[in-house]
Amino acid sequence: MPGHLARPIGAAPGQCYEEVRRAIATHTVRFEPSDKVVQVPTGTLLTEATRLAEIDLNIPCGGQGRCGRCAVIVADGGGGVRCRSTVRLSAEDVAAGYVLACQTVIQGDAVVTIPPQEKIERRLVTDKTAGEITLPFTYDPQQHQPMRLMSLTIDPPTTHDQTDDWSRLKRTMATMFGVLDLVADLDTLRSLAGVLRQADWTVTAVVEADTWDRPEGPPRLVDLLPGDRTQHLWGAAVDIGTTTVSVYLVDLLTGQVVAKAAEYNGQIRRGEDVISRIIYASKNDGLAELQSLVVATINEVIQRAARRAKVDPGEIHKMTVAGNSTMIPLFLGLPAESIRLDPFVTTINYPPPVRASQLGIAVHPQANVDCLPGVASYVGADISAGVLGSQMCDSEATSLFLDVGTNGEIVLGDCDWLISCACSAGPAFEGAGVRDGMRASVGAIEEVWINSQTYEPTYRVIPDPRLEAKGQPTPPRGICGSGLISLLAETFITGVIDKAGNPNLHTGSPRIRQGEHGPEYVVAWEGETEHGRDIVFSKVDVDNLIRAKAAIYAGFTVLAQSVGTDLSMVDQVLIGGSFGQYINIEKAIQIGLLPDMPWEKFRFMGNTALQGALLALLNRGVRRQVAEVARRITYLELSADNTFFDAFTSALFLPHTDLTSFPSVAEVLASREDEP
Amino acid sequence: MPGHLARPIGAAPGQCYEEVRRAIATHTVRFEPSDKVVQVPTGTLLTEATRLAEIDLNIPCGGQGRCGRCAVIVADGGGGVRCRSTVRLSAEDVAAGYVLACQTVIQGDAVVTIPPQEKIERRLVTDKTAGEITLPFTYDPQQHQPMRLMSLTIDPPTTHDQTDDWSRLKRTMATMFGVLDLVADLDTLRSLAGVLRQADWTVTAVVEADTWDRPEGPPRLVDLLPGDRTQHLWGAAVDIGTTTVSVYLVDLLTGQVVAKAAEYNGQIRRGEDVISRIIYASKNDGLAELQSLVVATINEVIQRAARRAKVDPGEIHKMTVAGNSTMIPLFLGLPAESIRLDPFVTTINYPPPVRASQLGIAVHPQANVDCLPGVASYVGADISAGVLGSQMCDSEATSLFLDVGTNGEIVLGDCDWLISCACSAGPAFEGAGVRDGMRASVGAIEEVWINSQTYEPTYRVIPDPRLEAKGQPTPPRGICGSGLISLLAETFITGVIDKAGNPNLHTGSPRIRQGEHGPEYVVAWEGETEHGRDIVFSKVDVDNLIRAKAAIYAGFTVLAQSVGTDLSMVDQVLIGGSFGQYINIEKAIQIGLLPDMPWEKFRFMGNTALQGALLALLNRGVRRQVAEVARRITYLELSADNTFFDAFTSALFLPHTDLTSFPSVAEVLASREDEP
Repeated sequence: MPGHLARPIGAAPGQCYEEVRRAIATHTVRFEPSDKVVQVPTGTLLTEATRLAEIDLNIPCGGQGRCGRCAVIVADGGGGVRCRSTVRLSAEDVAAGYVLACQTVIQGDAVVTIPPQEKIERRLVTDKTAGEITLPFTYDPQQHQPMRLMSLTIDPPTTHDQTDDWSRLKRTMATMFGVLDLVADLDTLRSLAGVLRQADWTVTAVVEADTWDRPEGPPRLVDLLPGDRTQHLWGAAVDIGTTTVSVYLVDLLTGQVVAKAAEYNGQIRRGEDVISRIIYASKNDGLAELQSLVVATINEVIQRAARRAKVDPGEIHKMTVAGNSTMIPLFLGLPAESIRLDPFVTTINYPPPVRASQLGIAVHPQANVDCLPGVASYVGADISAGVLGSQMCDSEATSLFLDVGTNGEIVLGDCDWLISCACSAGPAFEGAGVRDGMRASVGAIEEVWINSQTYEPTYRVIPDPRLEAKGQPTPPRGICGSGLISLLAETFITGVIDKAGNPNLHTGSPRIRQGEHGPEYVVAWEGETEHGRDIVFSKVDVDNLIRAKAAIYAGFTVLAQSVGTDLSMVDQVLIGGSFGQYINIEKAIQIGLLPDMPWEKFRFMGNTALQGALLALLNRGVRRQVAEVARRITYLELSADNTFFDAFTSALFLPHTDLTSFPSVAEVLASREDEP
Repeated sequence: MPGHLARPIGAAPGQCYEEVRRAIATHTVRFEPSDKVVQVPTGTLLTEATRLAEIDLNIPCGGQGRCGRCAVIVADGGGGVRCRSTVRLSAEDVAAGYVLACQTVIQGDAVVTIPPQEKIERRLVTDKTAGEITLPFTYDPQQHQPMRLMSLTIDPPTTHDQTDDWSRLKRTMATMFGVLDLVADLDTLRSLAGVLRQADWTVTAVVEADTWDRPEGPPRLVDLLPGDRTQHLWGAAVDIGTTTVSVYLVDLLTGQVVAKAAEYNGQIRRGEDVISRIIYASKNDGLAELQSLVVATINEVIQRAARRAKVDPGEIHKMTVAGNSTMIPLFLGLPAESIRLDPFVTTINYPPPVRASQLGIAVHPQANVDCLPGVASYVGADISAGVLGSQMCDSEATSLFLDVGTNGEIVLGDCDWLISCACSAGPAFEGAGVRDGMRASVGAIEEVWINSQTYEPTYRVIPDPRLEAKGQPTPPRGICGSGLISLLAETFITGVIDKAGNPNLHTGSPRIRQGEHGPEYVVAWEGETEHGRDIVFSKVDVDNLIRAKAAIYAGFTVLAQSVGTDLSMVDQVLIGGSFGQYINIEKAIQIGLLPDMPWEKFRFMGNTALQGALLALLNRGVRRQVAEVARRITYLELSADNTFFDAFTSALFLPHTDLTSFPSVAEVLASREDEP
């Protein structure tokens, strides 16, 4: 479903063309694949032609030729059109017939193909029906899965054989399946007598053969089901994000993800970022409250996924959990205070397996809840899982893995070495500490383009589905993380602010003004907004964002320096985390958040933590490997490193003190200066 | 504290003697060790002389010379006295100067030594300050005890060593004590960060090195205490009886029992006997209710013992539990219904170790609660523990081990073989199913003697300490188990009832009468009783008791027959269970409950289950041995055995159809017939 421009600007209104059409020769433009045809006069912009054809083509930058989003293909070598600019297109693109619709005028008949439009994904990308997930191995439950279903028919007791129920079950398990030394928790034993008799001694045992910390077993009876129940075996992979909790419901017999769901972490109401949650947890019953809030969220998403797949949540017999180094302790009810205080130490990086009932998770009470291991107090299981999911730990290429959230967690390395750090970027990229910042939900401005002549913005809002269904635009309420990156880059590139982040109050634009709390840029006037107040981007916001990006970039620098090199050694940049999926690489480079490298070196990994949890849920070998990877990653504590402060200070400019490290940005800035 | 006779009969009142004294020569009688002296006339009964000297000598049979309890020693070969009967004294006793005070008249000066009076123990024998317990081994905590205290000082974390708390603790444990692979439950991990920092990194680890089911470990961190806390390590041994819950609080560093406590099992209000509790547990939330009732009782006795020893119950780090085959499942919350129903199978005879918090036991939440194993559905951990505690499993002598309760659980064997059965005697010996039956508490008649001439009874009541302090007798409320055995034997021996249990209504005594529900014997008239109603012993009661004793005796017979022999092979009879301590062997033989053997072959073992729990708590070798013993004991299901019914039918007489098996009873009956 394509987005829409809440306040589109650019081409003049249609009436003008009606007049012109009478005066000038008209041409036939046919659009593929919709097969729509329009007649337009010479000189008509291709974007206007699409509008007349009622084709919804995104023009995020408002037709400045800067965003490159309106690329279309003109047949027959581009005959019938003239391109004013191809700055956003590669030579291969041009050779393939691509033009930017906003920079192309019609001067003859033309056939134009509109490629599939870039989807405007919502943040809760995983809260929808399951798609195909590609596993990096061919799933073989017998080999990979420690969970087993065993169907048994047991000889019932007689007065001549009064063996107790448990010994009787164990005897049959040993004879039929060679399972020795079976153990069971008290809760499982409590249901034994009832199930065996109810099922007339034909039952299905759900057995966990081993766990990551006990590869030799003993096998554990997780559940005993009446009758033959070997058709299904369910598991859940969960990622607890500071903002979003995501779940995959998984068929452990096939390895298929059968449903997905996601929801905002219920802890948000007690603090937007990890630090405020740690502080909240350290007071009174805060820890217990946060624990139960996240458990309630997990239960909700599990129930939602289970409902979609028509599965009883009580039949989910295993769960793996990834999460950052604060989310995992809070989930387990472990105090997190020491994470926040020098020397920043956590209780346990390799949590033991626990039972669902110990945590209040509403799956089978005896399900093993396996939290993936973290590296250090600020490099959690999400990163271990991400490093594994990205396979950077198996590659000869040097990778820079980045998870941007409240903290920027960074891992640099290859199959031989891995080094990590965490930069306390603060929550600015999550919309906190920014006056009109908000989370990426309905009404958030998620992309901004500014006209470098008029300083007028174009923005895209995360739509309200109900308004969208009626064809109405969604008024903005604030700006989310990707919108802020976009806004910082655009204000910088267009000269609204300078490299130190100071607004230029002398442009004559009413949008750049002295506000109540210092200079600010008006993104949306009160008449356009939901709450009837101006949405602004202030100097304070700018400074917060610059500090955040500087911390992350300094992290890259220090990691590279710590191994005696610099960022030029990096073969690929892997961007993990669900927020990462929405970072516009160009904008992120322009503000100096990401290093200036060819775009093809960047890979969006999606929710690597959730992927890692999925792989660990399915494959005992991967699960052990996560633990090994976590152990292999060297953690560099930045607070103990003077070079970090130097690198941070150097990065407190847009894009950086050293502009030579950002040649593509220097080029854009130079081209702006050339503009009339 | 000696008992008192609520309604003493026998010697005439003192005034008579004053008159006689004037007429007849008087003699000086000095009593040792009190050094009291009285002057009495010729012909004075020695019991009367003690009364005049204000010495409280028990005369349970009212001075008939039948109970033998008033044995005293007369110095100088018995000069100055004349013995009318020494039937209750052995030749050795007579040679040592013993006489029965009630059968001895003064005819000269005499020096009489009163031996220490037999204590009238209350049923809750263990609910008092700890006495010395003799262990069958020299306790060496290093060798025997799987629990360890380890005092550690840990290097605190720095920014250069950010190892997580758990790994840091494990590292120190490995270096200082060679403890590898330490594990901890989530609850323990939750307190880790706080304790380490509160204690400034000097702590004491409470570690369980192994458990009975995992002799190889892994060692488990049960608790982490701030500072050096190696002075104390506490454990609790618990016996859950159907009627009484008893506890020993134990210093695991020395092996000393430091306090004892006992209380009635709170489940009693939901059923007196195991069968009614199983039925109650199988309905609605009955199981959960019974589980929490017994847990509440256990918590109460533990708290009481802990208060006596000035120990915080939260510092009890280990617990072993013995109990019968119904009490253990109900304690663990395991359904017991199948125990009651053919083919009488329990869920598990070897329960796994559980944590105190899983059961709601108010000791340290992570304390291992280790329930000792049972043999079969009606031969529980109390019997395994009893067999081990009695050491019959190590002896070449053939022992008959008996625990009389609702069920008579019997084990026959030696170091080579052990065979057991359970006879459903019913709850008659516990006072249930008997019209005026009651538990052995304040106001219960616990011993009865009947005058064979007048049929007038003398009884002893368990006193109310408050009344006793004021020197007032406690009025009876009913008859407890030992009182019923006593009453059945006395009514039989004195001819109130015949060998089939039928009362003789033609004696002329108003005490033997036709009651509302058939013939009955009045034990106490309404004017004497607490509730103002007659306390009676009816034909129905007699029949119930005869069936109960017949079931147990039949059990002995069948066990002996099953190994191709009879009871004459038995070298010793070991009587376990706290009720066993109150069985009067002579009376029990007279009714045919116990086999007719020389009294020295009987040994009262006390609460063998509690003793077994204590040994298993202290000694890991013993703990494993209990499991081996439980496995070694062959269980004979009587319901599948026709010989049992035959043996039972033969035993439905007093003492038995075959009087030749009870020569001592035959002798007493013959001597009664000789009486005038």
